[in-house]
Amino acid sequence: MPKRVDHAERRDAVAAVAEQVIADRGLGAGLRDVALAGGWSTSVVTHYFTDKRDLLEFTLRRTIEGAAARIETQVGAGRTRLAAILEENLPLDSRRRRQWRLFIAFWGRAVHDPTLAAHQRRRHAAFRSALAEALAEAWGADVRHDAEREARRLFALLDGLAVQAAFEPGEWSADLQVDLVNRHLAGLGLSPILEVPRPAPPALGSHS
Amino acid sequence: MPKRVDHAERRDAVAAVAEQVIADRGLGAGLRDVALAGGWSTSVVTHYFTDKRDLLEFTLRRTIEGAAARIETQVGAGRTRLAAILEENLPLDSRRRRQWRLFIAFWGRAVHDPTLAAHQRRRHAAFRSALAEALAEAWGADVRHDAEREARRLFALLDGLAVQAAFEPGEWSADLQVDLVNRHLAGLGLSPILEVPRPAPPALGSHS
Repeated sequence: MPKRVDHAERRDAVAAVAEQVIADRGLGAGLRDVALAGGWSTSVVTHYFTDKRDLLEFTLRRTIEGAAARIETQVGAGRTRLAAILEENLPLDSRRRRQWRLFIAFWGRAVHDPTLAAHQRRRHAAFRSALAEALAEAWGADVRHDAEREARRLFALLDGLAVQAAFEPGEWSADLQVDLVNRHLAGLGLSPILEVPRPAPPALGSHS
Repeated sequence: MPKRVDHAERRDAVAAVAEQVIADRGLGAGLRDVALAGGWSTSVVTHYFTDKRDLLEFTLRRTIEGAAARIETQVGAGRTRLAAILEENLPLDSRRRRQWRLFIAFWGRAVHDPTLAAHQRRRHAAFRSALAEALAEAWGADVRHDAEREARRLFALLDGLAVQAAFEPGEWSADLQVDLVNRHLAGLGLSPILEVPRPAPPALGSHS
């Protein structure tokens, strides 16, 4: 590893590996497992994180902030805010399924851990208010619903759907998830805004 | 402890205590904690359970089966099946909030543990089909919806709502939970069937 590395950047790189390790193996994974997965000695990891708890908290916060940042980016790229929030929070592909396995692993711990629970509450409050704003935006002048309550109902649907999909990925195709969320939007007087993600097109020159 | 105790009954009594301990402290709690909480020596617990894993699996199964049995009983007592399922699965009081903390603790482990995940899948399949039947029953001849898909959407709502309520009990009063579920039922063409649980009446002879 080069001698002059930015401390924050390196901390972030270690947490990125921890995210993968925890998503794959759960919170039972230790500093040594993260070091091995990153191709480092354990002392590299302990140089950037005081202990496992420090690494866990930083990793959870990083994942939550990453999800929030992706929503902002997608909105900038011309997506409606509502579609961006919904798509980022559904386990539609392997990246998002991994993110959900990580969240669920943290929930199991956070339900008895005040500090981790505080991170979850911040995630809930932020997404709930973003959803309420996005719903109000989508309804425009024609608001016939209670945005705050409907944001809660929609957010609960997303979390619950992700939990069930995490345990039964074969039972929850992207098609099915998109259909259920579009049904829900129809009940809120909104036209379907989610589309099933298309597989990548074949490479140029392919004859298949 | 009396010499002649029924083995299955005693196993069940130990698991009942384990249920409380796990709900309060999470899966980090050990056989010794369960023994202490039950007022037994650790050897009593290890007499009925091979190891912690045996106790965890039995306790999870017992909780899931207990919830299913309560639904059947309430239906027998004149409740509609749909109302019974919904009420049993909402964290409306401290008993049900504790049950949810237990489920969430197990989810965090099960997402990386094939055996525990299999118990979760059985819970999902059983409740999903019970909900689909109950919805079809509630609609009667006037079925305008896809019962299987709407059962998934409703079940996801219940799970998601319970997760959020577990982290923010103060944000999710029984009133709010009942309102959101009744809104959801209205979207399915069903009249509100949930009622906010009333506090117990004052004792006879009370002047307050």
